[in-house]
Amino acid sequence: MATINTNFHKLAGSYLFAEIAKRTKQFAENNPSATVMRLGIGNTTEPLPSSIIKGLSLGVQKLASVATYSGYGDEQGDARLRLALADFYKNRGITVLEQEIFISDGAKPELPNIQQIFGSNNVIAVQDPVYPVYVDSNVIAGRTGVYTNGRYKKIVYMPCTQKNGFVPMPPKEHADLIYLCSPNNPTGAVATKKQLKAFVDFAIKHKSVLIFDAAYSEFISDKTLPRSIYEIPGAQKCAIEINSFSKMAGFTGVRLGWTVIPLELVIEKTEKGEVNKLWNRRQTTMFNGASNIVQEGGLAVLSKEGQRECKKIITYYMENAKIIKKALEKLGLTVFGGENAPYIWIKTPKNMSSWEFFDKLLNETHVVGTPGSGFGPGGEGYFRLSAFGHRENIEKAVQSIQKNLKI
Amino acid sequence: MATINTNFHKLAGSYLFAEIAKRTKQFAENNPSATVMRLGIGNTTEPLPSSIIKGLSLGVQKLASVATYSGYGDEQGDARLRLALADFYKNRGITVLEQEIFISDGAKPELPNIQQIFGSNNVIAVQDPVYPVYVDSNVIAGRTGVYTNGRYKKIVYMPCTQKNGFVPMPPKEHADLIYLCSPNNPTGAVATKKQLKAFVDFAIKHKSVLIFDAAYSEFISDKTLPRSIYEIPGAQKCAIEINSFSKMAGFTGVRLGWTVIPLELVIEKTEKGEVNKLWNRRQTTMFNGASNIVQEGGLAVLSKEGQRECKKIITYYMENAKIIKKALEKLGLTVFGGENAPYIWIKTPKNMSSWEFFDKLLNETHVVGTPGSGFGPGGEGYFRLSAFGHRENIEKAVQSIQKNLKI
Repeated sequence: MATINTNFHKLAGSYLFAEIAKRTKQFAENNPSATVMRLGIGNTTEPLPSSIIKGLSLGVQKLASVATYSGYGDEQGDARLRLALADFYKNRGITVLEQEIFISDGAKPELPNIQQIFGSNNVIAVQDPVYPVYVDSNVIAGRTGVYTNGRYKKIVYMPCTQKNGFVPMPPKEHADLIYLCSPNNPTGAVATKKQLKAFVDFAIKHKSVLIFDAAYSEFISDKTLPRSIYEIPGAQKCAIEINSFSKMAGFTGVRLGWTVIPLELVIEKTEKGEVNKLWNRRQTTMFNGASNIVQEGGLAVLSKEGQRECKKIITYYMENAKIIKKALEKLGLTVFGGENAPYIWIKTPKNMSSWEFFDKLLNETHVVGTPGSGFGPGGEGYFRLSAFGHRENIEKAVQSIQKNLKI
Repeated sequence: MATINTNFHKLAGSYLFAEIAKRTKQFAENNPSATVMRLGIGNTTEPLPSSIIKGLSLGVQKLASVATYSGYGDEQGDARLRLALADFYKNRGITVLEQEIFISDGAKPELPNIQQIFGSNNVIAVQDPVYPVYVDSNVIAGRTGVYTNGRYKKIVYMPCTQKNGFVPMPPKEHADLIYLCSPNNPTGAVATKKQLKAFVDFAIKHKSVLIFDAAYSEFISDKTLPRSIYEIPGAQKCAIEINSFSKMAGFTGVRLGWTVIPLELVIEKTEKGEVNKLWNRRQTTMFNGASNIVQEGGLAVLSKEGQRECKKIITYYMENAKIIKKALEKLGLTVFGGENAPYIWIKTPKNMSSWEFFDKLLNETHVVGTPGSGFGPGGEGYFRLSAFGHRENIEKAVQSIQKNLKI
């Protein structure tokens, strides 16, 4: 008699973006003449630059001839790509060894998968609000209690508030696995070196592990802000970094990312290198590598020309962010983020709830955003707009908000 | 204080293919002049046919222009590909709905991932010998006891022996999740409709779930043998089918597969459609879809021209199988498989152990194969050769075996 994993029943609601899609679809059906403008999901829209297209095409062409054909690659990833990533870090003054780098098919699957090497009794801590995957996947894995009053029992929520600039201090409570997202999705806040150092110190002191989601690191333009957790001394002893090509290269549907597990990382009852080895065992058993075509594209992204072209895409999206932010501020709204991250974090006017504002924005302006409460209880009363989109659509959305939003 | 998942410590050894790679590397280092011939891993070697290259190139080119660019796709997969797969089944007289089909990045990750929707107390049953991923991933997930005498406690092993033609009967013991692999990796045996019906009847009677790994189904040439579990009446009520483009299209490094979860599938305390919905929730939370480029390639595989060209590749590999099988039989070895599957299953001569024969074959003939015992205790005394390879390499390997193997 097979039984289901009843942890699924603990999940508070459907996956956030699925719910948004549902409400948007409903609106579109009821208002067939309205043009819905989507600033909800952080999804790229601009065509890939020529160097990356060239890299991906090379990946395809290699499969067409006997001499260059490849079947299964290493589960850990193409050695050339691991080396290129080690160089990528090196150019920033960070030492990461090739064997510490594992190529993935993106950050979203890695963030849940990484849990599998840790015991089920580990207490997780998350920023609040934050990308919902950390919480939902840990609920499914059974690391949390029931959902009451907007919170899951056994999860440590670290509030990101206007008062702390949306970057929390390390928790006062016991926490074993601490998810950090910087630049933060959804608030757009970036932790300073000093703020990250507090977490590294906490983790070393309490033998906790930081799971550092750096997916948006390339959007940081302020050179004093850290783009990798390994810019903080001691982080190699306590932090795993999960990163992605998705946003860096405008690559979201192509699926490529990487994870760093330092050899120095030591947790209770393990030796140096053991956690790295555990992940290697997990990957060789349950993963078959990222697509060889896509990894060839990843190499192109990391080439000199690729990096130059990627910066242009990032600049483009960040100009969108500026346009949105400026327009909203002009309307008198209180707005955060959008400076070193592609997300604009809006305080909803008149203490409206996040979903109320979602419906209002959709109905009045036909713009789809993301309710802050979907990112955790601390997001209630906030709303996220994404800077990913064609310029003309961003401008249309902004104009519609300026013209039609009744504040 | 973070702690590791101690289930990893239960794992008997390193992942089979990693161990083979290690021993092979050692041999190559000690014998620099020897040319090692690899018939170990079931890895494709032949270039992809033009229709598939065209499909993959289209996938890349679409990303180069605004009009056709796509970011994140649906986590469930491209609607066109799901439809094409529904048609693929329909052409074989099987009804599978699009919403029952989930596109994956391959069978290897899906076979562990699928467990996540089931409770941790489910008892799993596996054919013995069988593809080690089923067992190892369930060990990591904590569904098994310790490893003693070549077996994990709490796993039901269903012996595949020469006596039962390497296709077992349903277990006499209690079993909730039954992994079936047909054509079987490693034995090459294919279950008949009657044999599969016994499992479907068992599963319906005991409210168990069959997890049917059909990755090698396209190698079946005998038209009386089932290529999908859904050819068996009642299977929609109790079976999940996991399949792959890897072997069908000679596509292994490209990463694409699919999983079918019928709406009719009902387990304890669930309603119709609920298991399908659970998997949907799992996928939307922890997966971000297969690569859009690769899915475009999948569409090409399923096109008329693609199917015609794929059949040619399969015929090529199956001719390899015949060459290997014939030569080994001529040497007086007892050989199975290789007729409806790309694997040759050899009884080791003189009751040698599988690893003894591995070392003997490598040392005497420079051919790398896979020790049967790596697939479970029932594989001891057997040895697998893979039919994947360039013809000239297969012929060289066969000649070396004929000339140098001392039986």
